[in-house]
Amino acid sequence: MERIAIIGLGLIGGSLGLDLTRQGYPVVGIARRAETAKAALAMGAATEAGTDLALVAGAEVVFICTPIDTVLATAKAIAPYLSAGAVVTDVASVKGELVPAIEALWPNFVGGHPMAGKAEAGLAVAEIGLFQGRPYVLTPTEATNPAALERVGAIATSLGANLCQCHPDQHDRAVAWISHLPVMVSSSLILACQQEADPDILSLAQTLASSGFQDTSRVGGGVPDLGTLMARHNRTALLDALTQYQHQLEQIKALIAAEDWDAVHNTLTQSQAARPAYLA
Amino acid sequence: MERIAIIGLGLIGGSLGLDLTRQGYPVVGIARRAETAKAALAMGAATEAGTDLALVAGAEVVFICTPIDTVLATAKAIAPYLSAGAVVTDVASVKGELVPAIEALWPNFVGGHPMAGKAEAGLAVAEIGLFQGRPYVLTPTEATNPAALERVGAIATSLGANLCQCHPDQHDRAVAWISHLPVMVSSSLILACQQEADPDILSLAQTLASSGFQDTSRVGGGVPDLGTLMARHNRTALLDALTQYQHQLEQIKALIAAEDWDAVHNTLTQSQAARPAYLA
Repeated sequence: MERIAIIGLGLIGGSLGLDLTRQGYPVVGIARRAETAKAALAMGAATEAGTDLALVAGAEVVFICTPIDTVLATAKAIAPYLSAGAVVTDVASVKGELVPAIEALWPNFVGGHPMAGKAEAGLAVAEIGLFQGRPYVLTPTEATNPAALERVGAIATSLGANLCQCHPDQHDRAVAWISHLPVMVSSSLILACQQEADPDILSLAQTLASSGFQDTSRVGGGVPDLGTLMARHNRTALLDALTQYQHQLEQIKALIAAEDWDAVHNTLTQSQAARPAYLA
Repeated sequence: MERIAIIGLGLIGGSLGLDLTRQGYPVVGIARRAETAKAALAMGAATEAGTDLALVAGAEVVFICTPIDTVLATAKAIAPYLSAGAVVTDVASVKGELVPAIEALWPNFVGGHPMAGKAEAGLAVAEIGLFQGRPYVLTPTEATNPAALERVGAIATSLGANLCQCHPDQHDRAVAWISHLPVMVSSSLILACQQEADPDILSLAQTLASSGFQDTSRVGGGVPDLGTLMARHNRTALLDALTQYQHQLEQIKALIAAEDWDAVHNTLTQSQAARPAYLA
């Protein structure tokens, strides 16, 4: 079987390695730190590992699994070592800026985003079957080589993932709604409560908070690095989503202020009816 | 043991009845519909049951467990039948309007709010031990009879609940933050997503939505009747909370617009740090 390279051995890169070595691929894992490379080898997430980007030489498919803000630099750095015809793909959670930039560097690039996050990060939480039943988005453009797209799609399918395909900008608008907007909405909920000026009431609110508050505040209590990176790289779509959200919130607030209870009921009925489509 | 009356045999009234009959109290259950009274009797949520409010006669403690918008009318309707010295309490989730109004009707009134909601409502989902380990708020005022307060507190404690005590207005401000604001925040999130004009992107967003979106949208997809009643009866505190929330959201949006990523990171770090206090 052809050689596959994985650059960046965290949750996604490590889990990918675990699945692909099990399928029989020779997998070369490349990490920034030698200990990470060694650990990946030891746990079977790679069949060969090291810290040198030149290890991509000879790989037919290269997965760039580094954090979003180093994907482009990594693509630039490996270009001199890539075998002619090698397919390069990434797993970054925002695509609109990255895809055209990497396509300009390497013709056989296919943007990808496996939706398989976890609360924790790193190789230590990598797992076999992580992508099973989860969406795996590929974001081809007019410039994408159909054979490269097919190659990456076949690997994603072999992981048990549900393959989706859309334009990078469509991807970014969709994830702004369902992933990046919720972080800001949820963070602001926590911080609004914290503005309560009466310490007795704040303490009471904290005591009385139950599953409803805990669920609504969960993603707002998540890793700040990730939320910041997403906002930074999907700024335009997120700002659009925030504007629309503010409009929606102002509407229901105005109905409450006007004591238009039928309209408030109607609004809550609409959100109740709309939600199941997001739970597929 | 003294006779206890429970008016309104839904989730809360029914669960209360199940626990109190098991403690050996004679419990008279009063429902609007004869079938509900019969069902409560059959499942052991009452030792006597019917539809006539006159059944409160002879009860030493009366729990009004009807929906919030009928608590006051129920208190008025039972006043002629109450034994002298009977203690009356309720379980409504908003207290600021109700408590002074019922105190004016009956001197031995104690406002209460057991925090023990469920996604479903009604006697069919009533359960033994529902209040175990959950907060049970009592909201005495200057006018509250200390003996009545002690009596209701002793029953709440006997249910295994964690007794809290505060002024009705403090209660309402606290639940506005952690219960009523989240419903509006979460409903608006769903409805904002629904505003996506491109049907392909909307459909993609629905496909890609995972646990983060599902958690953040959960309470916004809840029962519209309940959300509307809460907004209606806690309008002032909810509007204050919404205004503060809008301010908070505008702040993070402005930081994203200004590309002040250190400040965005700092904001998300604050919400991450603040959340655990709400999870006790």
